[in-house]
Amino acid sequence: MASLRPTVLRSLPRLASASRVGASATRMTPARLTATATVGMRGYKSKHSPQPLRDVMTGEIIGLPDIDSSLVKITTTTTPKTRPPSSKLIFGHTFTDHMLTIPWSSATGWGTPEIKPYAPLELDPSSTVFHYAFTLFEGMKAYRQEDGTVRLFRPDKNMARMNRSAQRIALPTFNGDELTELIKKLVVLDSEWIPKEKGFSLYIRPTLIGTQNALGVGPSSDALLFVICSPVGPYYASGFKPVQLLATTKFVRAAPGGTGGYKLGANYAPGVVPQKEAAKEGYSQNLWLLGDEHALTEVGTMNLFVAFKQPDGTVELVTPPLDDVVLPGVTRDSVLELAKAHARGETTIPGLPQKLKVSERKLVMADLVNAEKDKTLLEVFGTGTAAIISPVDKIGYEGRDIAIPTGSDGLGDISRAMLDQIVGIQTGEIEHEWSVIANEPNA
Amino acid sequence: MASLRPTVLRSLPRLASASRVGASATRMTPARLTATATVGMRGYKSKHSPQPLRDVMTGEIIGLPDIDSSLVKITTTTTPKTRPPSSKLIFGHTFTDHMLTIPWSSATGWGTPEIKPYAPLELDPSSTVFHYAFTLFEGMKAYRQEDGTVRLFRPDKNMARMNRSAQRIALPTFNGDELTELIKKLVVLDSEWIPKEKGFSLYIRPTLIGTQNALGVGPSSDALLFVICSPVGPYYASGFKPVQLLATTKFVRAAPGGTGGYKLGANYAPGVVPQKEAAKEGYSQNLWLLGDEHALTEVGTMNLFVAFKQPDGTVELVTPPLDDVVLPGVTRDSVLELAKAHARGETTIPGLPQKLKVSERKLVMADLVNAEKDKTLLEVFGTGTAAIISPVDKIGYEGRDIAIPTGSDGLGDISRAMLDQIVGIQTGEIEHEWSVIANEPNA
Repeated sequence: MASLRPTVLRSLPRLASASRVGASATRMTPARLTATATVGMRGYKSKHSPQPLRDVMTGEIIGLPDIDSSLVKITTTTTPKTRPPSSKLIFGHTFTDHMLTIPWSSATGWGTPEIKPYAPLELDPSSTVFHYAFTLFEGMKAYRQEDGTVRLFRPDKNMARMNRSAQRIALPTFNGDELTELIKKLVVLDSEWIPKEKGFSLYIRPTLIGTQNALGVGPSSDALLFVICSPVGPYYASGFKPVQLLATTKFVRAAPGGTGGYKLGANYAPGVVPQKEAAKEGYSQNLWLLGDEHALTEVGTMNLFVAFKQPDGTVELVTPPLDDVVLPGVTRDSVLELAKAHARGETTIPGLPQKLKVSERKLVMADLVNAEKDKTLLEVFGTGTAAIISPVDKIGYEGRDIAIPTGSDGLGDISRAMLDQIVGIQTGEIEHEWSVIANEPNA
Repeated sequence: MASLRPTVLRSLPRLASASRVGASATRMTPARLTATATVGMRGYKSKHSPQPLRDVMTGEIIGLPDIDSSLVKITTTTTPKTRPPSSKLIFGHTFTDHMLTIPWSSATGWGTPEIKPYAPLELDPSSTVFHYAFTLFEGMKAYRQEDGTVRLFRPDKNMARMNRSAQRIALPTFNGDELTELIKKLVVLDSEWIPKEKGFSLYIRPTLIGTQNALGVGPSSDALLFVICSPVGPYYASGFKPVQLLATTKFVRAAPGGTGGYKLGANYAPGVVPQKEAAKEGYSQNLWLLGDEHALTEVGTMNLFVAFKQPDGTVELVTPPLDDVVLPGVTRDSVLELAKAHARGETTIPGLPQKLKVSERKLVMADLVNAEKDKTLLEVFGTGTAAIISPVDKIGYEGRDIAIPTGSDGLGDISRAMLDQIVGIQTGEIEHEWSVIANEPNA
């Protein structure tokens, strides 16, 4: 505790001005998300505990309290856990000393945020999360530099997506900037848990569940947002292992009109049996296809990129377009943005080809089969928060394997360039606005 | 407690013979389910606490313990709740004094079943149910007759489906007969909670959740099966209210290769926003369509039946065939079985037409549009455990409403005949093997 600065642990009320709330809601809202800000533009809030928003003239209640980071109640542990050595970390098995919880009810809005010792949740067995999968989550990472600086990567993207997921299953939305502030407080409080070794980070898991204690199928009257943190090692502890994909037509991950484009728990449990079946046939993951054309959508729990060589020597980097089938991955978006900036000549990313074209377009298995034949298939890789870049060297399809080139160390040129660039930004080695400092360096 | 007989509360070890286990697994396994009995056919079990199954010759462990009802530990409440009057019951809001829990782990199999006071579940925030929707459930009903007889309706169907659901998301399967025995003990212990009034019953909710405390996406290493019970009133407290359906092409409930044919939590939360959108347009529920032909699949959270008049006067009762899109509803199956027996002349169900044809076949919206035009559309109704039969009087489709005939009291002839027959069997007024007595009458 001695190393924590008062600026980090401040829990004094802070004026969450209406204009700031409004501005942030606008900035973080992608085109497809119809914002439903629970706090209006004209009103005042009483401080110290969550209060409904009242009209300045009439005093009438015009909105329920949103998440307010200034009201956080912090209780630090009196029995800190023993931290395992970094070399012993297994993804998602170890959790830090503290967690964040914020309750919500349809009657009173968002309640008091609490940062407190990591502990079990106590929930009525009728809670809707147990019955109807009212659950959604995010995956984020925090990095710690030698000087103690703790960095988050594009938290605004996670907050926007989390709100979008919440809307899809009628769970409450919230001010993402306020949740980001609370996450910063949590990771800084537990920053000793973030390994400093290269490739290590703190995996952050914001989760929102329905906690209504009644069995009717409908919008949940109650919810709980919680955040837990897990120190994790590099995804490829012993060098890069390209993955082998089985292109499955037996199972679909998601269909148009469904929920594949939202980060809901409901998209994950159904993928486990298909994964086991792929493993039985000697493949690491599924390549999820859609429709009679066998359109490529995602790989395992990651987005998908394919690089082709065009006749004039240009390299085309392709990923399937976003819709309600493909998840809007933060790493997907980062790869796209970085590659596009390079293609436009705005920046130069070492290792990327000079003549690069970046496409979000439909991709069908016939494209891959033909490119293998023509020797124009350059690389295939998955993107996700956990692995960042996951190279693919084989795709099983209709009884045979499509061979995908990879570099001698398992990573192709584009994969390598993208991985280096993103990790550089995440760790602060490369200056970029995407990297958000959670504390003050060396203060 | 005074009214409970020792035969009901017996918790003495009972020999669960291997052959009985094997037989029950076979009987309860639908053709599409590959049985994965966790208890082999050759071995012995030590009693008193769950023990692995060992080979009779070598003593080698050849299987992990299955659910064993004879090992149940029963703790009755010392603070019984006040039972609300039947007239105040809202579906799924009130729960009885006790619940059943059975833990499972991949290392030790099914643990000791416990019937104990209804209480919150305490789960680590990393539990997989909160993150990846490792959850599935069943809905069953118990009825109590004037003489105290408590009846379940086709529990074997629920047990078979629950095992099938479990396999789909890699949760553990179990001996359904043993779980039925435990459910009998639970409902008999709480039988004073079952209202005796006509139309009232005890809604039983068996639920299976993943409780592994780690974030990797894969088969859950731990699980918890629990059963809670809620006294419920008649679905139509004040007469039959036909429902209005909006045939949606904007949302899909399930697609081929997905999980619609399994009773997973994952199928439910995503349906709430579509339901809200239907309500905004003045409809009670969605009619879920599939594909370019607009094939009918389900209504809201129910199966669907349509009755047509054929040129020769025969009535054809149609429901979409089972596949991985349509849930194998117990009420759906009961309507089919009863109607088929009537059509074959094996039984006569009062109110059903003499010339009846029963079909499980693909049904598209054009069929309904044409039948409305030809005046051959007789009835549309949904089936489910909660409402049993839910008549439909309107379907909004492509900007206009298809009018569906209903009787003067809101129920068509076939709906009425089916409802009366099924309720008669459920309550014991009509003798039928589907009705299973949970206790001994007047013993």
